[in-house]
Amino acid sequence: MKTADEVQNILNGFTCNREVSVEIYESYGRVLFDDVYSKVDVPLCDKSTVDGYAITNEGLNNDFLVISDEIHAGDPADMLINPGKCIWVATGSNIPKNTDRIIPFENTINSENTIRIVKMTKNSNIFKKGTDIPKNTKVLDKNTLIDEKAIGILASIGMDKINVYDTPKVAILSVGSELSEINEVNSKTLTAIVRKAGCEPVFLGVVEDSIEKITSAIKNAVLQYDIVVTSGGTSKGKKDYMFEIISSIGDILFHKVKSIPGMPIFAGKVSEKPIICLPGNVASCLVCGYAYLLPMFLNAAHKTFKRELVIADLSEEFNSELGIKHYFPVKLKDGIAYPAFRGSNMITSIANADGLVDVSENEVKVRKNVKIWLI
Amino acid sequence: MKTADEVQNILNGFTCNREVSVEIYESYGRVLFDDVYSKVDVPLCDKSTVDGYAITNEGLNNDFLVISDEIHAGDPADMLINPGKCIWVATGSNIPKNTDRIIPFENTINSENTIRIVKMTKNSNIFKKGTDIPKNTKVLDKNTLIDEKAIGILASIGMDKINVYDTPKVAILSVGSELSEINEVNSKTLTAIVRKAGCEPVFLGVVEDSIEKITSAIKNAVLQYDIVVTSGGTSKGKKDYMFEIISSIGDILFHKVKSIPGMPIFAGKVSEKPIICLPGNVASCLVCGYAYLLPMFLNAAHKTFKRELVIADLSEEFNSELGIKHYFPVKLKDGIAYPAFRGSNMITSIANADGLVDVSENEVKVRKNVKIWLI
Repeated sequence: MKTADEVQNILNGFTCNREVSVEIYESYGRVLFDDVYSKVDVPLCDKSTVDGYAITNEGLNNDFLVISDEIHAGDPADMLINPGKCIWVATGSNIPKNTDRIIPFENTINSENTIRIVKMTKNSNIFKKGTDIPKNTKVLDKNTLIDEKAIGILASIGMDKINVYDTPKVAILSVGSELSEINEVNSKTLTAIVRKAGCEPVFLGVVEDSIEKITSAIKNAVLQYDIVVTSGGTSKGKKDYMFEIISSIGDILFHKVKSIPGMPIFAGKVSEKPIICLPGNVASCLVCGYAYLLPMFLNAAHKTFKRELVIADLSEEFNSELGIKHYFPVKLKDGIAYPAFRGSNMITSIANADGLVDVSENEVKVRKNVKIWLI
Repeated sequence: MKTADEVQNILNGFTCNREVSVEIYESYGRVLFDDVYSKVDVPLCDKSTVDGYAITNEGLNNDFLVISDEIHAGDPADMLINPGKCIWVATGSNIPKNTDRIIPFENTINSENTIRIVKMTKNSNIFKKGTDIPKNTKVLDKNTLIDEKAIGILASIGMDKINVYDTPKVAILSVGSELSEINEVNSKTLTAIVRKAGCEPVFLGVVEDSIEKITSAIKNAVLQYDIVVTSGGTSKGKKDYMFEIISSIGDILFHKVKSIPGMPIFAGKVSEKPIICLPGNVASCLVCGYAYLLPMFLNAAHKTFKRELVIADLSEEFNSELGIKHYFPVKLKDGIAYPAFRGSNMITSIANADGLVDVSENEVKVRKNVKIWLI
């Protein structure tokens, strides 16, 4: 039997390292496979930051300047500013090569085809090539989670596609002959945990307590998916075959964990793919989903797992067993945490909870100032 | 010109109220359209909570009980326990109607076909019909965000499909003739903001500064999508046509906001659909995305918007204008917030920031203990 930390370390040994290329428009929430360098200057060339008149320094000596041309956003700027002349430019437009500064139109008096400068500005109003992002700069690090900011950078440097890690595919199998007559719950809560981690769930269906059928389903699953998760068949009942099956077709990574609920969890490796076998009781299964699978899936997807914690007092003392970690579901009300657990076979034990109290292996009594992991 | 709060109130007046039915497996992250009541008892009938022997109270008087039958999970339990007899039952299996309690197998001594009870348990080990969720209970409220816990409830009460609010479809249009020659950024950052809010982005493309073409694109968009967002063409340049266009084909909801960056934002209503026109500068556009669109989209989708805040000191005093709200991008380092803003035309002004300092309309100087909205 392993501790919770040992189990997590084993599960976090599996990552999905395939590279795929995605459109920038589709890249939100993905993780960068490589460092990204800019191959261009941003902006690509000098631009105007205002609507106004492009002039040369020489032109400052003139009382009046003749407007010789107009450059709108998107127009080329292949002309030059001639002596005694200026050129009207728009915000964001290209500017003539010999532009020294741009006078905002509100700082000029315009009469027919000429302007008179009535006020200078401190800066030149030129958005210099490469000011935002210089060419060859490293703009994003490998393993960055692509959000709206990273997308802004990638778009600015002109990338249409980007290499990211492939999304881990998690196969889910529900085991148990009783599932033909009761409402099957675990595959649905586990599917949600997979989605919460941003991975791709694939439900393989419900399989009865048959060594042959379960074995066949798992052998097929490990060929196609990155991670396989089963629920049910892990106890010591007459028809709990999961441990026997995984032992015979693969290597056991750990058997049981020193944590409650969910102690009968075990994992194996079949054809290099991890297979995690959860207990069938609905609350135990979902607690294992939070405690072990969510961090595992995020890690497999190269993403960060972070618990959202609050501190609260428990409504009553909770007594735990030394050496066993307890994930104790609680309902928060007016800043007090009330026990929500009613039995590992009841979905309301966890579905009505707001958080899990993580009572560590060396704690035996908890009551005041307890850290609660919001779920 | 409206205040930031007034603008948000106007934008939050638009919600997407269409009802759609989705599979429970696909319901993660959706929002319940109706209150949900359970039409069944969970569990549907009495079950055993242990592997053991179902007995009647009368059987407690016997020294030995003969094992007359076995009920495995999924088997029917249509027999009765006869005097002097017991029936082997599995965890989660149905139990005979006249069962009074179940003795766990580890509390018995088994010899050939009989058992002797050596230890009693406090409880009956019967998982009574309806204990988890009684029939006709309200189990989930309308507008609940469907997470793994809600899915656990929905699955337990046997629902395969559920009615949810339809996902708002947000059309994105980029306006500006210059976009043919520079890397277009805003449609990509806005697409990401739409996804961040869990809505569905639809990119309509880039349209040049042409009244006819922009008008046509918007008229088409409002027929198909719930919200239309444009960027570019909102300033006072010669070819900034957006305000003129929306004024002519719809009603203006507000024109400009007392907040920086992003002051030129405005919105209108065309064919009852909201259209929000953002400035084209990449940093202003994304700040408006965070400040106004993210809350608007979440609200439209019947979801909650919550800022994640930290408190930090600024590296230098920030001076703001009275009556104007400032969204000031900062980079956090060792607990100090450094200014990240370099100009509204630079993506790095916002993409390199960790948060936005929300300097309210009545603050003119901020430095210590500043609330920073993590982005």
